[in-house]
Amino acid sequence: MTLARDLAAAVTALERTDLDAEAVRWAQLGITDAIACAIAGSQEAAPRLAIAAVGANHEEGPCLLLGLGRRTGPLSAALVNGVAAHALDFDDVNDVLGGHPSAPLVPALLALGEAYGASGSELLLAYVAGFEAECKIGLAVNFHHYDKGWHPTATLGVFGAAAASAKLLRLSEEETATALSIAASFASGLKANFGTMTKPLHVGHASRNGAFAALLAREGFTAGEAAFEHEMGFFEVYNGAGTYDASRVLGEWADPLSVVEPGVGVKPYPCCGSTHAPIDAVRALVSAKQIAPEDVVSVRVLAHPSRIPHIDRPEVHTGLEGKFSIQYCVARAIHDGALRLSHFEDGQATEAAVQALMPGVSIEAGVPRESDERLAVRVEIATRDGATHDWRVEEAIGTGGARSPIPEADFRAKFDDCCTRAMSAESTDRLYALCGDLDAVASVADLTETVAEGARAAVAG
Amino acid sequence: MTLARDLAAAVTALERTDLDAEAVRWAQLGITDAIACAIAGSQEAAPRLAIAAVGANHEEGPCLLLGLGRRTGPLSAALVNGVAAHALDFDDVNDVLGGHPSAPLVPALLALGEAYGASGSELLLAYVAGFEAECKIGLAVNFHHYDKGWHPTATLGVFGAAAASAKLLRLSEEETATALSIAASFASGLKANFGTMTKPLHVGHASRNGAFAALLAREGFTAGEAAFEHEMGFFEVYNGAGTYDASRVLGEWADPLSVVEPGVGVKPYPCCGSTHAPIDAVRALVSAKQIAPEDVVSVRVLAHPSRIPHIDRPEVHTGLEGKFSIQYCVARAIHDGALRLSHFEDGQATEAAVQALMPGVSIEAGVPRESDERLAVRVEIATRDGATHDWRVEEAIGTGGARSPIPEADFRAKFDDCCTRAMSAESTDRLYALCGDLDAVASVADLTETVAEGARAAVAG
Repeated sequence: MTLARDLAAAVTALERTDLDAEAVRWAQLGITDAIACAIAGSQEAAPRLAIAAVGANHEEGPCLLLGLGRRTGPLSAALVNGVAAHALDFDDVNDVLGGHPSAPLVPALLALGEAYGASGSELLLAYVAGFEAECKIGLAVNFHHYDKGWHPTATLGVFGAAAASAKLLRLSEEETATALSIAASFASGLKANFGTMTKPLHVGHASRNGAFAALLAREGFTAGEAAFEHEMGFFEVYNGAGTYDASRVLGEWADPLSVVEPGVGVKPYPCCGSTHAPIDAVRALVSAKQIAPEDVVSVRVLAHPSRIPHIDRPEVHTGLEGKFSIQYCVARAIHDGALRLSHFEDGQATEAAVQALMPGVSIEAGVPRESDERLAVRVEIATRDGATHDWRVEEAIGTGGARSPIPEADFRAKFDDCCTRAMSAESTDRLYALCGDLDAVASVADLTETVAEGARAAVAG
Repeated sequence: MTLARDLAAAVTALERTDLDAEAVRWAQLGITDAIACAIAGSQEAAPRLAIAAVGANHEEGPCLLLGLGRRTGPLSAALVNGVAAHALDFDDVNDVLGGHPSAPLVPALLALGEAYGASGSELLLAYVAGFEAECKIGLAVNFHHYDKGWHPTATLGVFGAAAASAKLLRLSEEETATALSIAASFASGLKANFGTMTKPLHVGHASRNGAFAALLAREGFTAGEAAFEHEMGFFEVYNGAGTYDASRVLGEWADPLSVVEPGVGVKPYPCCGSTHAPIDAVRALVSAKQIAPEDVVSVRVLAHPSRIPHIDRPEVHTGLEGKFSIQYCVARAIHDGALRLSHFEDGQATEAAVQALMPGVSIEAGVPRESDERLAVRVEIATRDGATHDWRVEEAIGTGGARSPIPEADFRAKFDDCCTRAMSAESTDRLYALCGDLDAVASVADLTETVAEGARAAVAG
């Protein structure tokens, strides 16, 4: 037996009854978040340019390009929706994977679900299987894999997409093993291309190729049986001798499921991860102490030194600069009590009332250097009445997954913020309800049709 | 300046007038051979299964699937034709690349040429540019790259396909640099998957992705500027510190053109490369000494020991086994004076008259172990009249490129053998004439239309 075959056996053996309520809840959260991020991301340049390049304008098919009101074949849809899902870097995160777990999975599953038929319940199960495969391979190869320069969301996500697609298509154990071995020859994505449109392209590419690997296997394509452990296979060639532990892939398989522990890390704010904990603290203080924007004299953020250099940006002229400015993000949190996608559009970033608050915001090293303190921050707000209020946050809300779960209200606010960029409020409500009870969804096409209707209504409205 | 930008400048600067008659002759040979191999390969399982998986059955487009009588969009055509071009492992070879130079290039160029319009002359120039790019990158990373486990036809071919596609689409220097940087994030293909359909899939994947990278760049997509030399870029991540010399990419650029020196290595026989030199020797002896099959008592092959283990196969039951049997290949050469595709079909491999010759064929270590003798063989044929005739071949004809150019008659015989698998003899003649004078071809579509007509005539005939 080979690892591909053993992993395939584990994937095919996973059944709906293996998922407890907690697993279902997390899986629904991850699927919902990925769909919302893809809808929001569809309005960015990268997915639109990818459509033009892929020639999807002229391609007929059953698969919706979320937020774009067009349909193509499954591979193009997985590609374009995958680019959209990661275009804003707002999609969910996972420490073990060292990347974004849902963006490679969900576009492939929606596309195959539409093209070949799948229920909401099958979508759930396939998602959990793919999530488990990519995270447990991550356990075996990280963080050397990440540190070396690979983009794990793509290089590991392609295995997740292949496993999830194989599950959705009900492939046999042997076919699933073939899909995983083909995926090993598709893994790619260099961190040298971070900071450009090619980063989200990696994710769309992985989603497409995972689906493609499963479709090839389904047609009877052949691949090497030892594509992982072969001396010229994935572990040796991508990581190298001594930098991986292949036994961890199945050693901790589904025990617990990665989707439950560490869970799905959801970003509540569409800005740099290092700004999240300070924003949480500011929101908590403003709410607890009823601090009005005009009462704020200064805000002092104390954070781990590793978090400071890339977000200490006192001046902001564009929306993109705002995403990496603790001054702007904190000022915005005080001014609006929340951070929304629109706040990072170029016009909004220079709003006078927010810019007026920014000079009072400072950041400095202020928590111990021990590693378990790297995520913690303390925020002090001095107010006009001479008082100073302070708040400590141990870890940003949402991104830690099960360690710091996102409150339902914040999740819903993010969902609405994302979806209403490209669909009506009414359809956004319906989509949220459908995603929250996937077992009751007869067909994946019901999900995408709701998105398509919402887009039509938004255009008409 | 980055390497991607410098390489892009070299690619965009290359002009038709930089190609002397020798370069044009080799380029035409390589393009012609790739088209012929793709037409023959189209009848294999791998490209047919790839079409089904890619969903191309339902995709409309201007681009011909060679030998299959269907048209799709450019990316699917590049993929399927790329799989077909390498499906028989009969396509051309190059020592520096450590692989097959034309199979990643020609499918991308035909597809883009059909979709976006290009002349035969533009095809020629784009091919030479892509050939140069992939071979000179090969010079920088091989043979560590090959030995490590990468499949260079795919991992380097994707750069060739991107450069060639950029040239055909007349991209600017900046756009060409972007295409090359995107291609760095697409490079993939593990040797662990050799011996399966996934090997030719690598090549189709590279061809598609090279074309896709160029189309993305043309649409205004962005990528990292230092995707080659970045610490998390192609050289460091795929090869690793100390195992490459980036300066060689441009240090020997077009001086001479790789297409001229070492030239295009053409395989005359559809079987293992290690059987080629013995076949050459047998054919030369049989022809020079007028030896009839019934006069042969025994054949003794003396070869470098490294060449023996994988081809010393006295018994053959299937066509595939025949490809790796010196006994079968030599017997076939004596019996037919040539090796054709049909000889490696299962029924033919067990033909009685050929099987009767096989017990007389033996192979043993018989040339010095010095490296410059690794390619040489000596063959001794003992005949019924008591005589023994011997012949030495320094290097197999064809595969060495400029060191051992393939005779026109052998090349034409291979072309006919390949093309008539899927098109009429008349159209095969026309296609050969068109490929032999590409400057006179007004449109790439004239080439593919000839293939399409030939396929229709073959079906009707």
